[in-house]
Amino acid sequence: MRSEEFMTAYKELTKRFHRMHQLSHLSSMAHWDQATMMPEGGNDARAEALAELSVIMHQSMTQPDLADLFARAKEESLDEWEAANLREMHTHWQNENVLPEDLVRDKSLAGAKCEHAWRSQRPANDWEGFAANLKPVVELSRKEAEIRSQATGVSRYDALLNLYEPGMTSAKLDEIFGDVKTWLPELITKVQAKQKSESCLIPEGPFSVASQEALGRDVMGLMGFNFNGGRLDVSAHPFCGGVPEDVRLTTRYDESDFTQALMGVVHETGHACYEQNLRRDWISQPVSEARSMGIHESQSLFFEMQIGRHPAFLSLILPLLKKHFADQPAMALDNLQTLYTRVNPAFIRVDADEVTYPAHVILRYEIERALMEGEMEVDDIPAAWNEKMQAYLGVDTRGNFQNGPMQDIHWTDGSFGYFPSYTLGAMYAAQQFAAIRKVLPDVDAMIGKGDLAPIFAWLRENIWRNGSRYDTDTLITKATGESLNPQFFREHLEARYL
Amino acid sequence: MRSEEFMTAYKELTKRFHRMHQLSHLSSMAHWDQATMMPEGGNDARAEALAELSVIMHQSMTQPDLADLFARAKEESLDEWEAANLREMHTHWQNENVLPEDLVRDKSLAGAKCEHAWRSQRPANDWEGFAANLKPVVELSRKEAEIRSQATGVSRYDALLNLYEPGMTSAKLDEIFGDVKTWLPELITKVQAKQKSESCLIPEGPFSVASQEALGRDVMGLMGFNFNGGRLDVSAHPFCGGVPEDVRLTTRYDESDFTQALMGVVHETGHACYEQNLRRDWISQPVSEARSMGIHESQSLFFEMQIGRHPAFLSLILPLLKKHFADQPAMALDNLQTLYTRVNPAFIRVDADEVTYPAHVILRYEIERALMEGEMEVDDIPAAWNEKMQAYLGVDTRGNFQNGPMQDIHWTDGSFGYFPSYTLGAMYAAQQFAAIRKVLPDVDAMIGKGDLAPIFAWLRENIWRNGSRYDTDTLITKATGESLNPQFFREHLEARYL
Repeated sequence: MRSEEFMTAYKELTKRFHRMHQLSHLSSMAHWDQATMMPEGGNDARAEALAELSVIMHQSMTQPDLADLFARAKEESLDEWEAANLREMHTHWQNENVLPEDLVRDKSLAGAKCEHAWRSQRPANDWEGFAANLKPVVELSRKEAEIRSQATGVSRYDALLNLYEPGMTSAKLDEIFGDVKTWLPELITKVQAKQKSESCLIPEGPFSVASQEALGRDVMGLMGFNFNGGRLDVSAHPFCGGVPEDVRLTTRYDESDFTQALMGVVHETGHACYEQNLRRDWISQPVSEARSMGIHESQSLFFEMQIGRHPAFLSLILPLLKKHFADQPAMALDNLQTLYTRVNPAFIRVDADEVTYPAHVILRYEIERALMEGEMEVDDIPAAWNEKMQAYLGVDTRGNFQNGPMQDIHWTDGSFGYFPSYTLGAMYAAQQFAAIRKVLPDVDAMIGKGDLAPIFAWLRENIWRNGSRYDTDTLITKATGESLNPQFFREHLEARYL
Repeated sequence: MRSEEFMTAYKELTKRFHRMHQLSHLSSMAHWDQATMMPEGGNDARAEALAELSVIMHQSMTQPDLADLFARAKEESLDEWEAANLREMHTHWQNENVLPEDLVRDKSLAGAKCEHAWRSQRPANDWEGFAANLKPVVELSRKEAEIRSQATGVSRYDALLNLYEPGMTSAKLDEIFGDVKTWLPELITKVQAKQKSESCLIPEGPFSVASQEALGRDVMGLMGFNFNGGRLDVSAHPFCGGVPEDVRLTTRYDESDFTQALMGVVHETGHACYEQNLRRDWISQPVSEARSMGIHESQSLFFEMQIGRHPAFLSLILPLLKKHFADQPAMALDNLQTLYTRVNPAFIRVDADEVTYPAHVILRYEIERALMEGEMEVDDIPAAWNEKMQAYLGVDTRGNFQNGPMQDIHWTDGSFGYFPSYTLGAMYAAQQFAAIRKVLPDVDAMIGKGDLAPIFAWLRENIWRNGSRYDTDTLITKATGESLNPQFFREHLEARYL
């Protein structure tokens, strides 16, 4: 009798989260539509509908009987996956439960307004207009950070960071990024000096959107994307959205340059394959969700950096390039390899090479932490941005807001704490590739032959299918034999670029 | 004090319906995506998410405090629009409140399953497979009809009919359709005899999808569609979906024949303009919704039949045809006019000319009413279908399920009671055009000159902006000076075709 009563508590919780999964589905799809399909005039109605949905989801997660259900479920006899699921459900519940409903709605509306206006403000370089919308978003995020900080006992920024990267702290980030800052500037200088003498032809366009899209689809297929459960579309800011059963990834095309969109598609395909390979038998439960944003980015960066820009992979896809575009001297394999490993300190994070990329992330981390800790205001961002870009990459961003602090979408909807995930992801990816090389010593040759299945099988077994079964440290230790070790990333960069 | 308390009840109700509007937004968009964008493998997850949403919407409409709110609101002092809104809210509430939650969920899931399988079963002419999925849909719809019948005191079929056409009865339909059946067969015979001697060239394709789409957009623009608040896409079954702020219409293209897709776009544009011109200041409230499906179809058929196939309109869009397609003898104005007024008894309702169209509707009305009243079973449909097609149109549908009872989407999700709206719409449209001719005697010449604004202004003032302010009979009487009078439809057909 007693055990049956306990089972009811856990099962009842799984039912609640099953409903949350359905609501997330509708939210993800409406967000995807907003970014890809929705006409301009539909935005206000969409923002309102999504805000209402976020409130309904919040209400579902703040039902008064949940505390009792969790208390009872914790005494039940659960197997390993069920116990992990209960742990993840509890984290979701705590994260949602501390926020007042008004804050959830206000943040959703302020974020939608800021993001939507940003789409036209960015091309207009309109910092003033953007700042006016960003300020309320920052205020609401600070409120959220304060509430989360009080609930968890960590600092305000760390409380947000933990939403994306559970278990990570800014103390740890300071250590990791502090180390990067000791060797990265010198590495960039060395690589630039080495590359100065290398000649590099720029492929001459136009490369039609239709051809680029067809190439993208071919490469997605090569990398295991399941088109029966997903799509490729266009959006202003590339992303991977949708739901595991129907993954929607996007890119953007420049007809004068196919190289960015191509690697963009490879990157998002990494996110997509993670989602498509989460365990289906647990699909509606938190334990089957991706482990963290850092691990998610590790998959996109594994695809883009460890595989995509690998010389052997470029040789593998060269015939596809020649199938979709007219041949030209710049399409020679050597030249493509040079092109895809050029290091150029520049404005845009998403277009940055993997050597300068960490500098973009560290800059954002430092600014967003200061914003959330109340040590910086929105009006201070452009000066801080310029100062750091000058210091880390020697790039002058004065007056160039659209390619400075207005280039990213993250802060528009209050996703403060997300940016570190990118560089953590790059580090996890390098560590995973090193682990794969141990079990598949021929991995470089295998990539060149298109024998990618064993690599994806390793990822599926060690990362994808585990979802949130383990905490991040356990996941990465089980997969690679040790905790996060940034040395693998440094070695990867030095091996490829020096 | 007392009046304030009353105001709270009405205002509280408007808040509840505001939330319903947001949920409808998400539901409409997810349905649109399902029909236009979603990959096959995403269907199960989508069906589950939509079923969950339908339950949430049902729960919102069955909150125990609503009865008291309605009782209090009815005693309040409300202006005309508020009172009409209260009436419409009450109808929505009653319609939703009588259904048990399980039935709502089961019907949503059974409908999604049947509709999804139908997409591949129809091309495969797989009646057995389709019937297996349709049976549970019919059973659930019968349950719904029985519950609604007991709640409203009308017959089971009438109880469903009232969801689409409030105030309509099968007794009235028997009268209207019975009259049509006395003159339609003879009219068809006469028109066919007259058209036998007319030569008609069929335009020779291919007409690329891209050109057809560009032409469709031009024509939509000409007819006042606002692309800032809507889109045109492709789906297996053309429809007009989305929300008033973001109308999503679809068509399907056949590269060997542009004529069907073109008139399909004109038809859906009629629906779209109605939605886009509902009163924005009441947008989230039931009073601003379209009056009924019959009135909705009257707008699409006004656009398609009264304007679209009008000889003057064909002359107006002829330059657009020549802009998008190579000229050829079949593009001569006379020939196009002949082409667009040809009467051919055939299999497919959505492709039918306006003379034979009512026969398709009467057939479906008779079958669906018998199904809902328990006088016919799913297995009996093909024989009944064939018998009626032979009797009304002389068309043999034996063994041809895909172009027989499997051709439409309506029954797949249990929308029994919808079909009569099409022919009621055709009748309302003819009556509206006759009323416009009274105030704009030059209307035919105006169409030829592209001077369409006064026609749309009449529709906006008399139909679109009124939403559900009046019941259907009042709406049509205020607009045209009399109740529904099918004679206008007969006269329209006789004038155009004899």
